[in-house]
Amino acid sequence: MSETDRIKEFTDFRLRMNERILSEENQVVRRFFALDTQTYRPGALSLQTKELLGLVASMVLRCDDCISYHIAQCKEAGVTRAEFFEAFSVALVVGGSIVIPHLRRGVDFLDRLEGQGVHAEVPEHKHD
Amino acid sequence: MSETDRIKEFTDFRLRMNERILSEENQVVRRFFALDTQTYRPGALSLQTKELLGLVASMVLRCDDCISYHIAQCKEAGVTRAEFFEAFSVALVVGGSIVIPHLRRGVDFLDRLEGQGVHAEVPEHKHD
Amino acid sequence: MSETDRIKEFTDFRLRMNERILSEENQVVRRFFALDTQTYRPGALSLQTKELLGLVASMVLRCDDCISYHIAQCKEAGVTRAEFFEAFSVALVVGGSIVIPHLRRGVDFLDRLEGQGVHAEVPEHKHD
Amino acid sequence: MSETDRIKEFTDFRLRMNERILSEENQVVRRFFALDTQTYRPGALSLQTKELLGLVASMVLRCDDCISYHIAQCKEAGVTRAEFFEAFSVALVVGGSIVIPHLRRGVDFLDRLEGQGVHAEVPEHKHD
Amino acid sequence: MSETDRIKEFTDFRLRMNERILSEENQVVRRFFALDTQTYRPGALSLQTKELLGLVASMVLRCDDCISYHIAQCKEAGVTRAEFFEAFSVALVVGGSIVIPHLRRGVDFLDRLEGQGVHAEVPEHKHD
Amino acid sequence: MSETDRIKEFTDFRLRMNERILSEENQVVRRFFALDTQTYRPGALSLQTKELLGLVASMVLRCDDCISYHIAQCKEAGVTRAEFFEAFSVALVVGGSIVIPHLRRGVDFLDRLEGQGVHAEVPEHKHD
Repeated sequence: MSETDRIKEFTDFRLRMNERILSEENQVVRRFFALDTQTYRPGALSLQTKELLGLVASMVLRCDDCISYHIAQCKEAGVTRAEFFEAFSVALVVGGSIVIPHLRRGVDFLDRLEGQGVHAEVPEHKHD
Repeated sequence: MSETDRIKEFTDFRLRMNERILSEENQVVRRFFALDTQTYRPGALSLQTKELLGLVASMVLRCDDCISYHIAQCKEAGVTRAEFFEAFSVALVVGGSIVIPHLRRGVDFLDRLEGQGVHAEVPEHKHD
Repeated sequence: MSETDRIKEFTDFRLRMNERILSEENQVVRRFFALDTQTYRPGALSLQTKELLGLVASMVLRCDDCISYHIAQCKEAGVTRAEFFEAFSVALVVGGSIVIPHLRRGVDFLDRLEGQGVHAEVPEHKHD
Repeated sequence: MSETDRIKEFTDFRLRMNERILSEENQVVRRFFALDTQTYRPGALSLQTKELLGLVASMVLRCDDCISYHIAQCKEAGVTRAEFFEAFSVALVVGGSIVIPHLRRGVDFLDRLEGQGVHAEVPEHKHD
Repeated sequence: MSETDRIKEFTDFRLRMNERILSEENQVVRRFFALDTQTYRPGALSLQTKELLGLVASMVLRCDDCISYHIAQCKEAGVTRAEFFEAFSVALVVGGSIVIPHLRRGVDFLDRLEGQGVHAEVPEHKHD
Repeated sequence: MSETDRIKEFTDFRLRMNERILSEENQVVRRFFALDTQTYRPGALSLQTKELLGLVASMVLRCDDCISYHIAQCKEAGVTRAEFFEAFSVALVVGGSIVIPHLRRGVDFLDRLEGQGVHAEVPEHKHD
């Protein structure tokens, strides 16, 4: 499977399941998803800072999908490689060596994003 | 691989490794597995409620295998789709957006279980 | 400090800080608090079951304040001592011995609630 | 105990134990503390952004001491009340309602810091 | 309160609540407590090694009571100061800076234990 | 894919990404990796004990890659099957049934290592 296809598969599953989940009648779940989207809108803090906060939170909680998602969002928001690695260093020192396998996969994802030479195909409305 | 095969593979690995682990001489490990089975037997609380407790605990601790296991057990115990989503909503609100990727995979697992039109092939004696 | 005073202090700090937090202009935080309240309203699952789900989730995530809160809510909803201990047993087996110190404090809180011979003074609108 | 005394006690214990720990011959522990200090120095990201990252990481991992520490550092670095609450909102949505008790104590700490009308007495060299 | 009294209070609450919990009819909880005791009995691994494993597990999961308990048990089993700090260093590097506040309290507890010039008053049968 | 190939793939990805990460200019990340390597060098505690500490820490924090890594290191250091299972039992009792899926994969990894009849192909310099 090509690099583009792997990122596409990643995005497609997220989008398909988000739709599946939001089609249910549960209002709490729907509102949570809407709130999640609202959280990252620029305000007192910039979009870039908020996405970096989401990225570091995802790294110390060690969720690969969330990490990939926020890496793509950060990249879209203009985060540079040096900035990424400083955010990674905070996550690594706060969260410890247990974060390393997720860092490896996160850097691999970032490399693949950059290798494409294109912006990541991330959904317009985010849900984590 | 067909949907039935994926669930079968999931179940087969669990059963095979449980046997492998229980064949070792370690008494603490064996007793833990027995205790795990005993935990979900109906008592003051019904089987259904206990399995829902196990499901929500697994979701906030973010363990996909445990989530799949308890979804299958809940389904077997008669949990309805609306009840599943209310349990999911508690897990989501308590555990936060970091739970979302596990929710997506959990709903996908539930969809596949229901798509089969048959009860899940889960082991009679559970070990998480 | 008397038992009643300790529970009162616990409740007062929660109420005072919730008001303090909700007085800020941040809409995401306010909506999260409202959603948290909505989550436990009876629906397909009863109030009692939802509060038990919140309790077990709080135990495996090891948050004393959340455990106390949900114990008080469960008691209010009519959960019996035997039912409490079955919920505790699920949390203990899923979460491991690391849950034990929280179980000790949770049982101590429950004992004090019952020792009062009165319903706990918990806020009408919950925020975890 | 007055508000100033509580924050002073908090800082004194941290400083005293840090000295105690660094007086031991263990080189890994010493290097970890040095690395922790180095992590938050401004680079590609500003001091303010790095402290906000440390704050949100501490909130989702639910460590009161770390939260208080980073709130004091953020305040020192000029983070405004609106910015604090946007960072809190990210932590709350990513980490869930289990974060709320820590948010309450964090906001209480921030209120006390501001109530003093002075900068917090935090150590010059940080160790988380 | 003197140092001896603080450690005594810590031990007394644990013992009193363990008795309280074990007096309930719940067999799963009782068996879990018995299994917890059995886990640390010397076997292929020595008591000292097992207690060190329990200590490091408690540190990375960040449970102060469990850390204090295992520090007392390790001390009883003859763990030296240098060995303690090497175990601490593993916990610190695996678990990250979020472990530091617990390390501070753990070292404070160890200092107080040693300051007494006597073995810690820990219960004969352990429950974490 | 043969068993040898699966372990080789696991090792290759780790080595390749470690090189990738260390090629970046970020000094905090580099120092963290060096510190991680230093942590497990024999000192007051033996290599074997330190690797067992790393293994149990990885199990209760539930990181499959870290578990596989430390199992390979422990095996290299001469840990016997009975010792492995006693370490597993500590992790299981401290961390709870949520550890079981990781235990299954860990035992599977250990079986494959032993099935090879050769020492695992792990990197000389470890980064968890």
